[in-house]
Amino acid sequence: MASATSMRAAVLFGPGDIRVTTRPVPRPGPDEVLVRVAMCGTCGTDLKILDGHFPQTPPFGEFTPGHEWTGTVAATGETVDEFGPGDRVCIEAHSGCGRCDNCLTGRYTACLNYGRAAKGHRASGMTADGGFAEYAVHHVSALYKLPDQLSWEDGVLITTAGTGLYGLDVAGGFVAGQDVVVFGPGPVGLTTVQVLKALGAARVICAGTRPSRLELARRLGADHVIDVRSADVAASVLGLTGGEGADLTIDCSGSPAVPELFGQVTKRGGKVLVVAFYPSPVTLDLSAIVRKDITLCTSRGEGGNNVKRAVALAAAAKLRGADLVTHRFALDDIAEAFRVLRERDGDPVKVVVVP
Amino acid sequence: MASATSMRAAVLFGPGDIRVTTRPVPRPGPDEVLVRVAMCGTCGTDLKILDGHFPQTPPFGEFTPGHEWTGTVAATGETVDEFGPGDRVCIEAHSGCGRCDNCLTGRYTACLNYGRAAKGHRASGMTADGGFAEYAVHHVSALYKLPDQLSWEDGVLITTAGTGLYGLDVAGGFVAGQDVVVFGPGPVGLTTVQVLKALGAARVICAGTRPSRLELARRLGADHVIDVRSADVAASVLGLTGGEGADLTIDCSGSPAVPELFGQVTKRGGKVLVVAFYPSPVTLDLSAIVRKDITLCTSRGEGGNNVKRAVALAAAAKLRGADLVTHRFALDDIAEAFRVLRERDGDPVKVVVVP
Amino acid sequence: MASATSMRAAVLFGPGDIRVTTRPVPRPGPDEVLVRVAMCGTCGTDLKILDGHFPQTPPFGEFTPGHEWTGTVAATGETVDEFGPGDRVCIEAHSGCGRCDNCLTGRYTACLNYGRAAKGHRASGMTADGGFAEYAVHHVSALYKLPDQLSWEDGVLITTAGTGLYGLDVAGGFVAGQDVVVFGPGPVGLTTVQVLKALGAARVICAGTRPSRLELARRLGADHVIDVRSADVAASVLGLTGGEGADLTIDCSGSPAVPELFGQVTKRGGKVLVVAFYPSPVTLDLSAIVRKDITLCTSRGEGGNNVKRAVALAAAAKLRGADLVTHRFALDDIAEAFRVLRERDGDPVKVVVVP
Amino acid sequence: MASATSMRAAVLFGPGDIRVTTRPVPRPGPDEVLVRVAMCGTCGTDLKILDGHFPQTPPFGEFTPGHEWTGTVAATGETVDEFGPGDRVCIEAHSGCGRCDNCLTGRYTACLNYGRAAKGHRASGMTADGGFAEYAVHHVSALYKLPDQLSWEDGVLITTAGTGLYGLDVAGGFVAGQDVVVFGPGPVGLTTVQVLKALGAARVICAGTRPSRLELARRLGADHVIDVRSADVAASVLGLTGGEGADLTIDCSGSPAVPELFGQVTKRGGKVLVVAFYPSPVTLDLSAIVRKDITLCTSRGEGGNNVKRAVALAAAAKLRGADLVTHRFALDDIAEAFRVLRERDGDPVKVVVVP
Repeated sequence: MASATSMRAAVLFGPGDIRVTTRPVPRPGPDEVLVRVAMCGTCGTDLKILDGHFPQTPPFGEFTPGHEWTGTVAATGETVDEFGPGDRVCIEAHSGCGRCDNCLTGRYTACLNYGRAAKGHRASGMTADGGFAEYAVHHVSALYKLPDQLSWEDGVLITTAGTGLYGLDVAGGFVAGQDVVVFGPGPVGLTTVQVLKALGAARVICAGTRPSRLELARRLGADHVIDVRSADVAASVLGLTGGEGADLTIDCSGSPAVPELFGQVTKRGGKVLVVAFYPSPVTLDLSAIVRKDITLCTSRGEGGNNVKRAVALAAAAKLRGADLVTHRFALDDIAEAFRVLRERDGDPVKVVVVP
Repeated sequence: MASATSMRAAVLFGPGDIRVTTRPVPRPGPDEVLVRVAMCGTCGTDLKILDGHFPQTPPFGEFTPGHEWTGTVAATGETVDEFGPGDRVCIEAHSGCGRCDNCLTGRYTACLNYGRAAKGHRASGMTADGGFAEYAVHHVSALYKLPDQLSWEDGVLITTAGTGLYGLDVAGGFVAGQDVVVFGPGPVGLTTVQVLKALGAARVICAGTRPSRLELARRLGADHVIDVRSADVAASVLGLTGGEGADLTIDCSGSPAVPELFGQVTKRGGKVLVVAFYPSPVTLDLSAIVRKDITLCTSRGEGGNNVKRAVALAAAAKLRGADLVTHRFALDDIAEAFRVLRERDGDPVKVVVVP
Repeated sequence: MASATSMRAAVLFGPGDIRVTTRPVPRPGPDEVLVRVAMCGTCGTDLKILDGHFPQTPPFGEFTPGHEWTGTVAATGETVDEFGPGDRVCIEAHSGCGRCDNCLTGRYTACLNYGRAAKGHRASGMTADGGFAEYAVHHVSALYKLPDQLSWEDGVLITTAGTGLYGLDVAGGFVAGQDVVVFGPGPVGLTTVQVLKALGAARVICAGTRPSRLELARRLGADHVIDVRSADVAASVLGLTGGEGADLTIDCSGSPAVPELFGQVTKRGGKVLVVAFYPSPVTLDLSAIVRKDITLCTSRGEGGNNVKRAVALAAAAKLRGADLVTHRFALDDIAEAFRVLRERDGDPVKVVVVP
Repeated sequence: MASATSMRAAVLFGPGDIRVTTRPVPRPGPDEVLVRVAMCGTCGTDLKILDGHFPQTPPFGEFTPGHEWTGTVAATGETVDEFGPGDRVCIEAHSGCGRCDNCLTGRYTACLNYGRAAKGHRASGMTADGGFAEYAVHHVSALYKLPDQLSWEDGVLITTAGTGLYGLDVAGGFVAGQDVVVFGPGPVGLTTVQVLKALGAARVICAGTRPSRLELARRLGADHVIDVRSADVAASVLGLTGGEGADLTIDCSGSPAVPELFGQVTKRGGKVLVVAFYPSPVTLDLSAIVRKDITLCTSRGEGGNNVKRAVALAAAAKLRGADLVTHRFALDDIAEAFRVLRERDGDPVKVVVVP
């Protein structure tokens, strides 16, 4: 299949204008791998990209988004022996320049050459072509073998889970026995709930607005759920944690109302992890956070080789993509896929495209 | 029951001479808790204590060993409101002085006032009276509530598991997706195998000498076992880990032959954790460890509040004491319990005493 | 001198009403030390305490504040052999309960029993009597020997410097070669500037509002200063750091306008440390912090045994109290000392009281 | 000068047979920089390389060693804008593959593709041509600007100091106020002594065999020195540290007799750092290390971007190359330079070659 020279690919032609067209199949450079894409997930970030609000995307008319993809290796660059044609793989989006201070110290998602392709940085589907296409190339460092027993749905969600795992890594990683609050039962929040239980967290409390999502959180392992529309969140968390608050509070929601709760629901000496983006500035009682010696960690993307951890958890059946993939669309229907995602039509959790 | 004034207790009268006698029930000091002991485990360290080879034990004729005990609170000191009579509890052995550099920075098992009771340090069953008695007192900081659904066997093994968890804590703690070799399938090694799988480790490889123990390791979750008497350990580990070696190598064996394998079975940039003691000096190729940028961590006891993590894992049924407790003895039969342990009569794993 | 039974002490009788009266000399408990106070510093927190706005202070009419004190040991409790009469000492304010999760893991300034004296917690001059008196007692864990060559002024500022050092500890500690911005050239900010240069930081940039303070920052080692009233702070910092921003941004100012600068002046992957309190909620672009993978650390007080580090830096002449102590008052003039501090009369930096 | 096409270079033709010959000037690849070498240091590792005992060196007849070099940029590869012709630079030896687990997590000196040039790894002067030549190329990630005020001698020693700084980084980095023992006053040990004092260590104790070196250690900042031939090292260290031992013990000696001292001279809960290689297996009481909860860290080379830290310390005059460079040779005299180094003729500290 590596001999195909043209392919179908979704291209962003303008704000909100994504269409499928014919493009040349990319050729892998020396450190790259060409993958026949089997499935590509959509996510909230894609909506920002579609609207033209994401920094450093390639020009309209040239750019194929999609950063949660999985598939089968079609060809490899000349230095690549880690993978061979036929290998099933999943990905992380980011590959750093390998030469800035941050890449040298292992923080490639914070690459100081972010968006500068000439220096070697790429974020697949964000600053370089991604997975809403029949084929995609990626740097060899960003690929991971997908074990035989895992499905393409698992492959897509492994990238999502990598986000939560990287966040946990940044926040210390050793959550066994800890009480954790997760705000925002979207795909990142829900995989984070799964991951937390898989890592031995004590009480996992998920807070959100939609009862269907909270119910799903519970099925995926949350010990308690809180409907923030009807409950006093801070009182609930304190009640569930012996009055002390959570050892770790994770915001996957992006709701500007959540940060003001950080100091209330988190234990003295505890941590807050933010893996979401807010549409506007937030106001919070920062003194309360200082008074309680709380560290606020952040992370973006799935760095620190954490997709490898996600693969291992999926291989042990502790992450199950099929639990979250609710909608599937053919590549030609990608605009409809995004409409469903944006309008939450049919209460989608993870909407995927099958090129 | 707190009104009893005398009790039966095992006392060490000389090397190898442990006998049950009548002693006054201890009274809890202001920060202490009196516990009616339900079960007390024996361990290899107890054999050293019995033989008089453990540093800073109290004098013969006065000292009751036993450092893996569990039971029901009988009375509490005047400042204690964390527990009340009737609470089921398990323990960690160590309580630090709270005033030395190490205690101030959270490393109370390395208390600089180790063995100095006047300064506030105690190690229950090692430098102070322990659990081979009807009643024992302990500092409030060293007690943890035992959830209702857990058995006394679980309570005993929680202390054991705390050792492995503390070691993992010292070694970074975030083992999800990592390959780990565990040498020594004794109680510490076996609970460490359980813990590693509960924390999402990828491949857990257990190496030891006794087929029955290796089989038990496998039942408890080890993905692979290696009989060090018949296999080439280094070749086996490299074969199982894609030629790179383990991310983490844990020695729970205390065998002087194991350290020379550290540099062979551990990945470049990986870690070694030693939670065992060797009967003699060891010889190893330290340059190989340096050449591979390996960090060698050590820990003793169950510090860093890790017994709390063990309780959470047990409560989630990820640690099961009943899998390991093979022999039970009444307090009056404690000498026989130690004979069985020392002579490995009947292939005991964890031998417990029921006062 | 230990035989005195009454002493002069400043007592807070109501909001803003602090007066010197005669009190019994306290007697050291078993783990305590009685110190003849030589000097006690005032700080912004004292103004909140005076106004009755600090949580968990003892009742009016009974309470002596003062948490930056130094002096000579007069007597020791029965378990204390670390110090003896005549030893010169300096202090940290906090002594934890030694039994909660946070104290067990070395975070005693975040003691979960904060303010509960019966459980063993105390913060000298905040939740227990402090140093605006001829004598004060403190827990032995909170005292450090003051080397002979150091002055009482050094002794006072060592506590202040402990705040910055603890913050650096929380933020990783290894600042050699890093660019650091310090907001707020008050006593904490200024000692932090000294400490940063003493630890090999590359460029230390101090930002503040008062030219006299910025000039002092420069004399104490700041490589660059920024007057936030006349300069564009973000542009200045980016200009000084090759466009990347600071590796570490430290807020010692407590100005609600500073947090919105965190995301602008800090490098991708960098850290922010907050060791100040804000009088009101703050508004900031938290997404910018997340987008740049910035960790926001906080600390209060001088925990983690960092006063020991401060003593070492002072002993090596890298911290000099005399550089900062601008005003001295007798104990009887304590109200005037606080007036000078509050009204900034005579541009005071550190105002001290000599009991 | 970039237009030269041939150059003089020392080539290793066989064990111990290094000769200067004419070679083509290398051309920088896309990510590379060509440097006119101004000075290249020799080190103990070079002796192993000369003798053919270093793993993964290129074949005899083709290979130019030299891994501590400094000079002026002559030309840059097409993607390089970090440097331009005329820039003075210094280096770290290692540049990782950027694609293995270890490079992705910031541990490029432990690159899993060590020695595999096709995958992108190189160690200048070890697995690829180095600095004993008029020109050398290196990956852009491994170069650092040399400030104007620094000499070429400083530039050479910055690489050496990077070794100690990386070791400290691995061991935690925050040595302010700590007591440290350094074994082995060779160039690495001596720069480590300088660095420790520059980072605020309390007592720095240097132990070695040669009085001239110990005297130099003292001049460079060591507070105490111990002649291991005449003193009881363990007793001396305990005497100097209040009976507790050092917070950190660093072995830069490579003497097989040193490791048995680790457990004796290091404080409970302390750390050992090994940055040396031993000519033979070592025997030590590993139980003593476990009993004291000591972590043994290792590092090789100057990773973690620590050469950047070394540049900053040199720029602040806290590292001075001229203090250590005792012998200078022209490139044509390189064999004599190595003879002097090997035979310790004239008590050399750092012997440099000037191409």
